[in-house]
Amino acid sequence: MAENQVFQYSLISALMDGVASHGTPISRVLEHGDHGLGTFRNMVGEMILLDGQVYQMKADGSVVHITDTETTVTPFATVTRFRPTVTKKISISGKAHLQETLISLFPAAKNHFLSIRMDGKFKTIECRTAGGQCFPREGMVDVCSRQSTYNFSSEKGSLFGFRCPEYVMGINVAGDHLHFISEDRQRGGHILGFETEGEIELSVSQMSNFHMELPTDDEEFNEAALVKDEKGIKHVEG
Amino acid sequence: MAENQVFQYSLISALMDGVASHGTPISRVLEHGDHGLGTFRNMVGEMILLDGQVYQMKADGSVVHITDTETTVTPFATVTRFRPTVTKKISISGKAHLQETLISLFPAAKNHFLSIRMDGKFKTIECRTAGGQCFPREGMVDVCSRQSTYNFSSEKGSLFGFRCPEYVMGINVAGDHLHFISEDRQRGGHILGFETEGEIELSVSQMSNFHMELPTDDEEFNEAALVKDEKGIKHVEG
Repeated sequence: MAENQVFQYSLISALMDGVASHGTPISRVLEHGDHGLGTFRNMVGEMILLDGQVYQMKADGSVVHITDTETTVTPFATVTRFRPTVTKKISISGKAHLQETLISLFPAAKNHFLSIRMDGKFKTIECRTAGGQCFPREGMVDVCSRQSTYNFSSEKGSLFGFRCPEYVMGINVAGDHLHFISEDRQRGGHILGFETEGEIELSVSQMSNFHMELPTDDEEFNEAALVKDEKGIKHVEG
Repeated sequence: MAENQVFQYSLISALMDGVASHGTPISRVLEHGDHGLGTFRNMVGEMILLDGQVYQMKADGSVVHITDTETTVTPFATVTRFRPTVTKKISISGKAHLQETLISLFPAAKNHFLSIRMDGKFKTIECRTAGGQCFPREGMVDVCSRQSTYNFSSEKGSLFGFRCPEYVMGINVAGDHLHFISEDRQRGGHILGFETEGEIELSVSQMSNFHMELPTDDEEFNEAALVKDEKGIKHVEG
Protein backbone atom coordinates (compact mmCIF):
# COMPACT_ATOMS: atom_id res chain seq x y z
CA MET A 1 0.00 0.00 0.00
CA ALA A 2 1.13 3.57 -0.61
CA GLU A 3 2.72 5.61 2.17
CA ASN A 4 0.66 7.37 4.80
CA GLN A 5 -2.62 5.58 4.19
CA VAL A 6 -4.72 3.85 6.83
CA PHE A 7 -5.34 0.13 6.57
CA GLN A 8 -7.46 -1.69 9.10
CA TYR A 9 -8.55 -5.28 9.41
CA SER A 10 -12.09 -5.68 10.79
CA LEU A 11 -13.60 -2.91 12.95
CA ILE A 12 -13.52 -1.93 16.59
CA SER A 13 -17.26 -2.70 16.99
CA ALA A 14 -16.46 -6.32 16.12
CA LEU A 15 -13.94 -6.46 19.00
CA MET A 16 -16.51 -4.83 21.28
CA ASP A 17 -18.85 -7.70 20.29
CA GLY A 18 -16.12 -10.22 21.08
CA VAL A 19 -15.30 -11.21 17.49
CA ALA A 20 -11.75 -12.43 18.16
CA SER A 21 -11.57 -16.21 17.59
CA HIS A 22 -10.12 -15.81 14.11
CA GLY A 23 -8.35 -13.09 12.17
CA THR A 24 -5.87 -12.37 9.44
CA PRO A 25 -2.20 -13.45 9.51
CA ILE A 26 0.21 -10.77 10.72
CA SER A 27 2.09 -11.23 7.43
CA ARG A 28 -0.98 -9.94 5.53
CA VAL A 29 -1.16 -6.86 7.75
CA LEU A 30 2.54 -6.19 7.20
CA GLU A 31 1.84 -5.90 3.47
CA HIS A 32 -0.08 -2.72 4.27
CA GLY A 33 2.08 -1.03 6.86
CA ASP A 34 5.20 -0.89 8.99
CA HIS A 35 3.64 0.93 11.97
CA GLY A 36 0.41 0.28 13.78
CA LEU A 37 -1.51 -1.21 16.66
CA GLY A 38 -4.09 -3.87 17.34
CA THR A 39 -4.62 -7.04 19.28
CA PHE A 40 -4.25 -10.80 18.92
CA ARG A 41 -6.51 -13.88 18.78
CA ASN A 42 -8.88 -13.92 21.77
CA MET A 43 -7.67 -10.38 22.64
CA VAL A 44 -4.59 -11.76 24.35
CA GLY A 45 -2.43 -8.69 24.82
CA GLU A 46 -1.84 -5.46 22.95
CA MET A 47 -0.09 -5.23 19.59
CA ILE A 48 2.38 -2.58 18.54
CA LEU A 49 3.97 -2.55 15.08
CA LEU A 50 7.09 -0.39 14.97
CA ASP A 51 9.63 -0.20 12.13
CA GLY A 52 8.12 -3.36 10.63
CA GLN A 53 8.48 -5.38 13.88
CA VAL A 54 5.44 -6.75 15.71
CA TYR A 55 5.31 -7.11 19.49
CA GLN A 56 2.68 -8.74 21.68
CA MET A 57 2.47 -7.02 25.08
CA LYS A 58 0.84 -9.38 27.53
CA ALA A 59 -1.11 -8.87 30.75
CA ASP A 60 1.63 -10.62 32.80
CA GLY A 61 3.97 -7.79 31.80
CA SER A 62 5.95 -9.83 29.27
CA VAL A 63 6.54 -8.82 25.66
CA VAL A 64 6.82 -11.32 22.80
CA HIS A 65 8.55 -10.36 19.56
CA ILE A 66 6.34 -12.00 16.89
CA THR A 67 8.53 -13.63 14.28
CA ASP A 68 6.08 -16.26 13.09
CA THR A 69 3.95 -13.85 11.12
CA GLU A 70 2.21 -16.57 9.08
CA THR A 71 0.45 -18.49 11.87
CA THR A 72 -0.02 -15.60 14.32
CA VAL A 73 -3.29 -13.85 13.52
CA THR A 74 -4.93 -10.59 14.49
CA PRO A 75 -8.71 -10.08 14.77
CA PHE A 76 -8.25 -6.28 14.66
CA ALA A 77 -5.34 -4.09 13.63
CA THR A 78 -4.80 -0.62 12.17
CA VAL A 79 -1.55 0.03 10.32
CA THR A 80 0.16 2.48 7.98
CA ARG A 81 3.32 2.77 5.96
CA PHE A 82 4.48 5.62 8.18
CA ARG A 83 6.47 8.46 6.60
CA PRO A 84 6.18 11.46 8.93
CA THR A 85 5.73 14.84 7.29
CA VAL A 86 6.20 16.83 10.51
CA THR A 87 8.90 16.12 13.10
CA LYS A 88 9.40 18.21 16.23
CA LYS A 89 11.33 18.17 19.50
CA ILE A 90 8.78 18.90 22.20
CA SER A 91 7.82 18.31 25.84
CA ILE A 92 4.31 16.95 26.28
CA SER A 93 2.57 16.95 29.66
CA GLY A 94 -0.08 14.35 28.84
CA LYS A 95 -2.85 13.20 26.54
CA ALA A 96 -4.73 16.51 26.58
CA HIS A 97 -1.53 18.41 25.75
CA LEU A 98 -0.80 16.00 22.89
CA GLN A 99 -4.29 16.62 21.53
CA GLU A 100 -3.75 20.42 21.65
CA THR A 101 -0.32 20.01 20.02
CA LEU A 102 -1.75 17.98 17.14
CA ILE A 103 -4.52 20.53 16.58
CA SER A 104 -1.96 23.35 16.43
CA LEU A 105 0.31 21.38 14.06
CA PHE A 106 -2.58 20.26 11.79
CA PRO A 107 -5.31 22.87 12.29
CA ALA A 108 -7.31 21.80 9.20
CA ALA A 109 -7.14 18.03 9.81
CA LYS A 110 -10.07 17.35 12.13
CA ASN A 111 -11.81 15.35 9.39
CA HIS A 112 -8.67 13.46 8.36
CA PHE A 113 -6.56 10.78 10.01
CA LEU A 114 -3.20 11.32 11.72
CA SER A 115 -0.50 8.79 12.51
CA ILE A 116 1.62 9.73 15.52
CA ARG A 117 4.95 8.49 16.83
CA MET A 118 6.88 9.68 19.88
CA ASP A 119 10.42 8.57 20.74
CA GLY A 120 12.31 9.55 23.87
CA LYS A 121 12.25 9.39 27.63
CA PHE A 122 9.01 9.46 29.55
CA LYS A 123 8.71 10.66 33.14
CA THR A 124 5.58 8.55 33.58
CA ILE A 125 3.75 6.03 31.43
CA GLU A 126 0.49 4.43 32.46
CA CYS A 127 -0.36 1.37 30.35
CA ARG A 128 -2.95 -1.36 30.30
CA THR A 129 -2.79 -4.77 28.71
CA ALA A 130 -5.82 -6.97 28.04
CA GLY A 131 -5.45 -10.51 29.34
CA GLY A 132 -7.74 -12.12 26.80
CA GLN A 133 -11.22 -13.57 26.54
CA CYS A 134 -12.44 -16.13 29.10
CA PHE A 135 -14.73 -17.61 26.43
CA PRO A 136 -15.44 -17.03 22.71
CA ARG A 137 -17.50 -13.90 21.96
CA GLU A 138 -16.76 -12.33 25.36
CA GLY A 139 -17.04 -8.61 24.64
CA MET A 140 -14.22 -6.13 25.00
CA VAL A 141 -15.74 -4.22 27.91
CA ASP A 142 -15.74 -7.44 29.97
CA VAL A 143 -12.26 -8.45 28.77
CA CYS A 144 -10.90 -5.03 29.75
CA SER A 145 -12.58 -5.14 33.17
CA ARG A 146 -9.80 -7.64 34.01
CA GLN A 147 -6.98 -5.67 32.38
CA SER A 148 -3.58 -5.28 34.02
CA THR A 149 -2.26 -1.75 34.46
CA TYR A 150 1.40 -0.86 34.71
CA ASN A 151 3.12 2.36 35.66
CA PHE A 152 6.61 3.03 34.36
CA SER A 153 8.79 5.96 35.30
CA SER A 154 11.83 7.48 33.58
CA GLU A 155 11.33 4.96 30.81
CA LYS A 156 12.83 5.29 27.34
CA GLY A 157 10.68 4.03 24.53
CA SER A 158 8.24 4.73 21.72
CA LEU A 159 4.54 5.47 21.42
CA PHE A 160 2.71 4.88 18.20
CA GLY A 161 -0.92 5.35 17.28
CA PHE A 162 -3.60 7.17 15.37
CA ARG A 163 -5.96 10.09 15.63
CA CYS A 164 -9.20 9.18 13.86
CA PRO A 165 -11.99 11.62 12.95
CA GLU A 166 -15.25 11.53 14.92
CA TYR A 167 -17.24 10.09 12.02
CA VAL A 168 -15.39 6.74 12.12
CA MET A 169 -16.34 6.06 15.75
CA GLY A 170 -17.45 2.43 15.87
CA ILE A 171 -15.43 1.51 12.80
CA ASN A 172 -12.27 2.65 14.56
CA VAL A 173 -11.65 4.67 17.73
CA ALA A 174 -12.40 8.39 17.33
CA GLY A 175 -9.70 10.57 18.85
CA ASP A 176 -6.19 9.56 19.90
CA HIS A 177 -5.35 5.88 20.37
CA LEU A 178 -1.74 5.05 21.28
CA HIS A 179 0.31 2.02 22.31
CA PHE A 180 3.74 2.12 24.00
CA ILE A 181 6.79 -0.13 24.01
CA SER A 182 10.01 0.41 25.99
CA GLU A 183 13.30 0.92 24.18
CA ASP A 184 14.50 -2.54 25.28
CA ARG A 185 11.17 -4.01 24.01
CA GLN A 186 10.48 -5.56 27.43
CA ARG A 187 7.48 -3.52 28.63
CA GLY A 188 4.47 -1.78 27.15
CA GLY A 189 0.75 -1.68 26.42
CA HIS A 190 -2.20 0.54 25.57
CA ILE A 191 -1.58 4.10 26.77
CA LEU A 192 -3.84 5.42 29.53
CA GLY A 193 -1.62 8.38 30.37
CA PHE A 194 1.91 9.71 29.92
CA GLU A 195 4.24 12.64 30.52
CA THR A 196 7.50 13.17 28.69
CA GLU A 197 10.76 13.72 30.56
CA GLY A 198 11.99 16.83 28.79
CA GLU A 199 11.80 16.90 25.02
CA ILE A 200 10.98 13.83 22.95
CA GLU A 201 10.76 13.52 19.18
CA LEU A 202 7.20 13.79 17.89
CA SER A 203 6.62 12.61 14.29
CA VAL A 204 3.25 12.94 12.59
CA SER A 205 1.67 12.47 9.19
CA GLN A 206 -1.79 13.31 7.91
CA MET A 207 -3.69 10.61 6.01
CA SER A 208 -6.57 10.95 3.56
CA ASN A 209 -6.96 7.37 2.37
CA PHE A 210 -8.69 4.77 4.49
CA HIS A 211 -8.92 1.05 3.71
CA MET A 212 -10.86 -1.57 5.63
CA GLU A 213 -10.74 -5.31 5.03
CA LEU A 214 -13.58 -7.27 6.59
CA PRO A 215 -13.31 -10.82 7.92
CA THR A 216 -14.70 -13.39 5.47
CA ASP A 217 -15.97 -16.90 6.26
CA ASP A 218 -16.10 -15.86 9.91
CA GLU A 219 -19.41 -16.79 11.53
CA GLU A 220 -18.69 -14.67 14.62
CA PHE A 221 -18.24 -11.61 12.43
CA ASN A 222 -21.22 -12.38 10.22
CA GLU A 223 -23.53 -12.72 13.23
CA ALA A 224 -22.22 -9.78 15.28
CA ALA A 225 -24.57 -6.85 15.90
CA LEU A 226 -21.82 -4.24 15.26
CA VAL A 227 -23.92 -1.51 16.83
CA LYS A 228 -21.78 1.49 17.75
CA ASP A 229 -21.21 1.50 21.51
CA GLU A 230 -19.61 4.94 21.82
CA LYS A 231 -19.59 4.96 25.62
CA GLY A 232 -18.10 1.47 25.77
CA ILE A 233 -15.40 2.26 23.19
CA LYS A 234 -14.43 5.44 25.07
CA HIS A 235 -14.32 3.42 28.30
CA VAL A 236 -11.94 0.72 26.99
CA GLU A 237 -9.97 2.70 24.39
CA GLY A 238 -10.09 6.24 25.76
CA MET B 1 -8.33 -1.58 -7.88
CA ALA B 2 -9.11 -5.28 -7.56
CA GLU B 3 -12.53 -6.62 -8.57
CA ASN B 4 -15.53 -6.42 -6.24
CA GLN B 5 -14.12 -3.89 -3.79
CA VAL B 6 -15.83 -0.68 -2.70
CA PHE B 7 -14.18 2.65 -3.45
CA GLN B 8 -15.76 5.88 -2.35
CA TYR B 9 -14.66 9.49 -2.66
CA SER B 10 -15.63 11.62 0.36
CA LEU B 11 -18.54 10.58 2.56
CA ILE B 12 -22.30 11.01 2.52
CA SER B 13 -22.20 13.20 5.66
CA ALA B 14 -20.10 15.70 3.69
CA LEU B 15 -22.85 15.92 1.05
CA MET B 16 -25.43 16.29 3.83
CA ASP B 17 -23.34 19.26 5.05
CA GLY B 18 -23.30 20.70 1.53
CA VAL B 19 -19.63 19.96 0.74
CA ALA B 20 -19.99 19.92 -3.06
CA SER B 21 -18.09 22.90 -4.54
CA HIS B 22 -15.08 20.78 -5.44
CA GLY B 23 -14.36 17.10 -5.93
CA THR B 24 -12.22 14.60 -7.74
CA PRO B 25 -12.10 14.19 -11.54
CA ILE B 26 -14.34 11.43 -12.90
CA SER B 27 -11.22 9.95 -14.53
CA ARG B 28 -9.76 9.29 -11.06
CA VAL B 29 -12.95 7.52 -9.95
CA LEU B 30 -12.89 5.38 -13.11
CA GLU B 31 -9.48 4.05 -12.02
CA HIS B 32 -11.28 2.32 -9.15
CA GLY B 33 -14.43 1.01 -10.79
CA ASP B 34 -16.63 0.49 -13.82
CA HIS B 35 -19.99 0.58 -11.99
CA GLY B 36 -21.26 2.98 -9.37
CA LEU B 37 -23.27 6.00 -8.39
CA GLY B 38 -22.79 9.48 -7.01
CA THR B 39 -23.40 13.10 -7.84
CA PHE B 40 -21.71 16.05 -9.51
CA ARG B 41 -20.33 19.46 -8.51
CA ASN B 42 -22.96 21.45 -6.58
CA MET B 43 -25.14 18.30 -6.50
CA VAL B 44 -26.39 18.97 -10.02
CA GLY B 45 -28.07 15.70 -10.94
CA GLU B 46 -27.55 12.04 -10.17
CA MET B 47 -24.61 9.99 -11.43
CA ILE B 48 -24.72 6.43 -12.66
CA LEU B 49 -21.61 4.58 -13.81
CA LEU B 50 -22.46 1.53 -15.91
CA ASP B 51 -20.04 -0.59 -17.95
CA GLY B 52 -17.42 2.14 -17.56
CA GLN B 53 -19.70 4.91 -18.92
CA VAL B 54 -20.74 7.87 -16.74
CA TYR B 55 -24.12 9.58 -17.10
CA GLN B 56 -25.42 12.73 -15.43
CA MET B 57 -29.18 12.54 -14.93
CA LYS B 58 -30.51 16.05 -14.49
CA ALA B 59 -33.58 17.48 -12.78
CA ASP B 60 -35.00 18.72 -16.12
CA GLY B 61 -35.22 15.08 -17.19
CA SER B 62 -32.24 15.19 -19.55
CA VAL B 63 -29.28 12.81 -19.41
CA VAL B 64 -25.73 13.83 -20.32
CA HIS B 65 -23.17 11.20 -21.29
CA ILE B 66 -19.98 12.45 -19.59
CA THR B 67 -17.07 12.12 -21.98
CA ASP B 68 -14.86 14.83 -20.54
CA THR B 69 -13.79 12.83 -17.51
CA GLU B 70 -10.81 15.09 -16.73
CA THR B 71 -12.59 18.37 -16.02
CA THR B 72 -15.91 16.96 -14.76
CA VAL B 73 -15.63 16.38 -11.02
CA THR B 74 -17.64 14.53 -8.40
CA PRO B 75 -17.88 15.59 -4.73
CA PHE B 76 -19.20 12.12 -3.78
CA ALA B 77 -19.18 8.81 -5.60
CA THR B 78 -19.14 5.11 -4.72
CA VAL B 79 -17.84 2.69 -7.34
CA THR B 80 -16.66 -0.89 -7.84
CA ARG B 81 -15.05 -3.03 -10.49
CA PHE B 82 -18.22 -5.11 -10.72
CA ARG B 83 -17.90 -8.85 -11.41
CA PRO B 84 -21.15 -10.48 -10.26
CA THR B 85 -20.85 -13.81 -8.48
CA VAL B 86 -24.60 -14.52 -8.48
CA THR B 87 -26.89 -13.98 -11.47
CA LYS B 88 -30.57 -14.83 -11.43
CA LYS B 89 -33.72 -14.33 -13.54
CA ILE B 90 -36.34 -13.03 -11.14
CA SER B 91 -39.47 -10.87 -10.80
CA ILE B 92 -39.18 -8.23 -8.07
CA SER B 93 -42.22 -6.39 -6.76
CA GLY B 94 -40.39 -3.48 -5.16
CA LYS B 95 -37.66 -2.31 -2.81
CA ALA B 96 -38.82 -4.43 0.13
CA HIS B 97 -38.91 -7.53 -2.07
CA LEU B 98 -35.42 -6.77 -3.38
CA GLN B 99 -34.19 -6.50 0.21
CA GLU B 100 -35.72 -9.92 1.06
CA THR B 101 -34.24 -11.42 -2.12
CA LEU B 102 -30.75 -10.18 -1.27
CA ILE B 103 -31.02 -11.55 2.27
CA SER B 104 -32.05 -14.97 0.94
CA LEU B 105 -29.25 -14.97 -1.68
CA PHE B 106 -26.59 -13.74 0.78
CA PRO B 107 -27.85 -14.80 4.24
CA ALA B 108 -24.48 -14.25 5.97
CA ALA B 109 -23.67 -10.88 4.39
CA LYS B 110 -25.41 -8.36 6.64
CA ASN B 111 -22.04 -7.01 7.80
CA HIS B 112 -20.55 -6.93 4.29
CA PHE B 113 -21.23 -4.80 1.22
CA LEU B 114 -23.19 -5.89 -1.86
CA SER B 115 -23.16 -4.44 -5.35
CA ILE B 116 -26.39 -4.94 -7.23
CA ARG B 117 -27.36 -4.64 -10.89
CA MET B 118 -30.71 -5.27 -12.52
CA ASP B 119 -31.30 -5.31 -16.28
CA GLY B 120 -34.66 -5.72 -17.96
CA LYS B 121 -38.09 -4.21 -18.28
CA PHE B 122 -39.71 -2.38 -15.42
CA LYS B 123 -43.49 -2.00 -15.04
CA THR B 124 -42.96 1.11 -12.91
CA ILE B 125 -39.94 3.17 -11.96
CA GLU B 126 -40.13 6.13 -9.59
CA CYS B 127 -37.00 8.30 -9.72
CA ARG B 128 -35.81 11.55 -8.31
CA THR B 129 -33.10 13.87 -9.54
CA ALA B 130 -31.52 16.62 -7.46
CA GLY B 131 -31.44 19.98 -9.17
CA GLY B 132 -28.37 21.30 -7.44
CA GLN B 133 -27.40 23.73 -4.71
CA CYS B 134 -28.75 27.29 -4.74
CA PHE B 135 -25.64 28.44 -2.90
CA PRO B 136 -22.35 26.88 -1.70
CA ARG B 137 -22.68 24.69 1.40
CA GLU B 138 -26.44 24.30 0.98
CA GLY B 139 -27.13 20.94 2.65
CA MET B 140 -28.53 17.91 0.89
CA VAL B 141 -31.85 17.88 2.74
CA ASP B 142 -32.60 21.37 1.39
CA VAL B 143 -31.30 20.53 -2.09
CA CYS B 144 -33.54 17.44 -2.20
CA SER B 145 -36.57 19.39 -0.98
CA ARG B 146 -36.59 20.82 -4.54
CA GLN B 147 -35.94 17.50 -6.30
CA SER B 148 -37.82 16.49 -9.47
CA THR B 149 -39.57 13.14 -9.45
CA TYR B 150 -40.33 11.12 -12.54
CA ASN B 151 -42.49 8.05 -13.06
CA PHE B 152 -41.69 5.74 -15.94
CA SER B 153 -43.78 2.76 -17.00
CA SER B 154 -42.90 -0.27 -19.13
CA GLU B 155 -39.38 1.08 -19.32
CA LYS B 156 -36.36 -1.01 -20.29
CA GLY B 157 -33.16 -0.15 -18.49
CA SER B 158 -30.67 -0.87 -15.75
CA LEU B 159 -30.47 -0.24 -12.02
CA PHE B 160 -27.16 -0.22 -10.23
CA GLY B 161 -26.28 0.39 -6.62
CA PHE B 162 -25.04 -0.88 -3.31
CA ARG B 163 -26.24 -2.41 -0.08
CA CYS B 164 -24.07 -1.08 2.76
CA PRO B 165 -23.98 -2.47 6.31
CA GLU B 166 -25.60 -0.49 9.12
CA TYR B 167 -22.27 0.44 10.71
CA VAL B 168 -21.23 2.66 7.77
CA MET B 169 -24.30 4.90 8.08
CA GLY B 170 -23.02 8.48 7.80
CA ILE B 171 -19.95 7.40 5.87
CA ASN B 172 -22.16 5.91 3.19
CA VAL B 173 -25.88 5.10 3.06
CA ALA B 174 -26.84 2.04 5.14
CA GLY B 175 -29.19 -0.28 3.28
CA ASP B 176 -29.98 -0.34 -0.44
CA HIS B 177 -29.11 2.67 -2.59
CA LEU B 178 -29.84 2.39 -6.32
CA HIS B 179 -29.81 4.60 -9.41
CA PHE B 180 -31.61 3.87 -12.71
CA ILE B 181 -30.97 4.66 -16.34
CA SER B 182 -33.15 3.72 -19.29
CA GLU B 183 -31.84 1.42 -22.02
CA ASP B 184 -31.66 4.34 -24.47
CA ARG B 185 -29.77 6.37 -21.81
CA GLN B 186 -32.34 9.19 -22.03
CA ARG B 187 -34.06 8.98 -18.61
CA GLY B 188 -33.14 8.06 -15.07
CA GLY B 189 -32.30 9.08 -11.52
CA HIS B 190 -32.15 7.97 -7.90
CA ILE B 191 -34.60 5.10 -7.31
CA LEU B 192 -37.53 5.81 -4.97
CA GLY B 193 -39.52 2.75 -6.03
CA PHE B 194 -39.79 0.15 -8.81
CA GLU B 195 -41.52 -3.00 -9.94
CA THR B 196 -40.21 -5.33 -12.61
CA GLU B 197 -42.33 -6.32 -15.60
CA GLY B 198 -41.88 -10.07 -15.45
CA GLU B 199 -38.40 -11.42 -14.91
CA ILE B 200 -35.32 -9.25 -15.09
CA GLU B 201 -31.68 -10.24 -14.66
CA LEU B 202 -30.38 -9.63 -11.14
CA SER B 203 -26.58 -9.69 -10.72
CA VAL B 204 -24.94 -9.35 -7.33
CA SER B 205 -21.52 -9.58 -5.73
CA GLN B 206 -20.46 -9.48 -2.09
CA MET B 207 -17.60 -7.16 -1.14
CA SER B 208 -15.29 -7.27 1.86
CA ASN B 209 -12.86 -4.49 1.04
CA PHE B 210 -13.77 -0.86 1.53
CA HIS B 211 -11.67 2.13 0.46
CA MET B 212 -12.40 5.78 1.15
CA GLU B 213 -10.47 8.74 -0.26
CA LEU B 214 -11.06 12.03 1.55
CA PRO B 215 -10.99 15.44 -0.12
CA THR B 216 -7.71 17.27 0.46
CA ASP B 217 -7.09 21.03 0.31
CA ASP B 218 -10.85 21.50 0.48
CA GLU B 219 -11.82 24.11 3.06
CA GLU B 220 -15.51 23.13 2.88
CA PHE B 221 -14.64 19.55 3.77
CA ASN B 222 -12.14 20.52 6.45
CA GLU B 223 -14.68 22.75 8.20
CA ALA B 224 -17.73 20.49 7.87
CA ALA B 225 -19.26 19.06 11.06
CA LEU B 226 -19.79 15.59 9.50
CA VAL B 227 -22.12 14.57 12.29
CA LYS B 228 -24.20 11.55 11.30
CA ASP B 229 -27.74 12.68 10.44
CA GLU B 230 -29.36 9.26 10.17
CA LYS B 231 -32.89 10.61 9.83
CA GLY B 232 -31.82 13.10 7.16
CA ILE B 233 -29.87 10.49 5.17
CA LYS B 234 -32.82 8.08 5.25
CA HIS B 235 -35.08 10.93 4.13
CA VAL B 236 -33.01 11.89 1.08
CA GLU B 237 -31.42 8.56 0.20
CA GLY B 238 -33.97 6.05 1.49
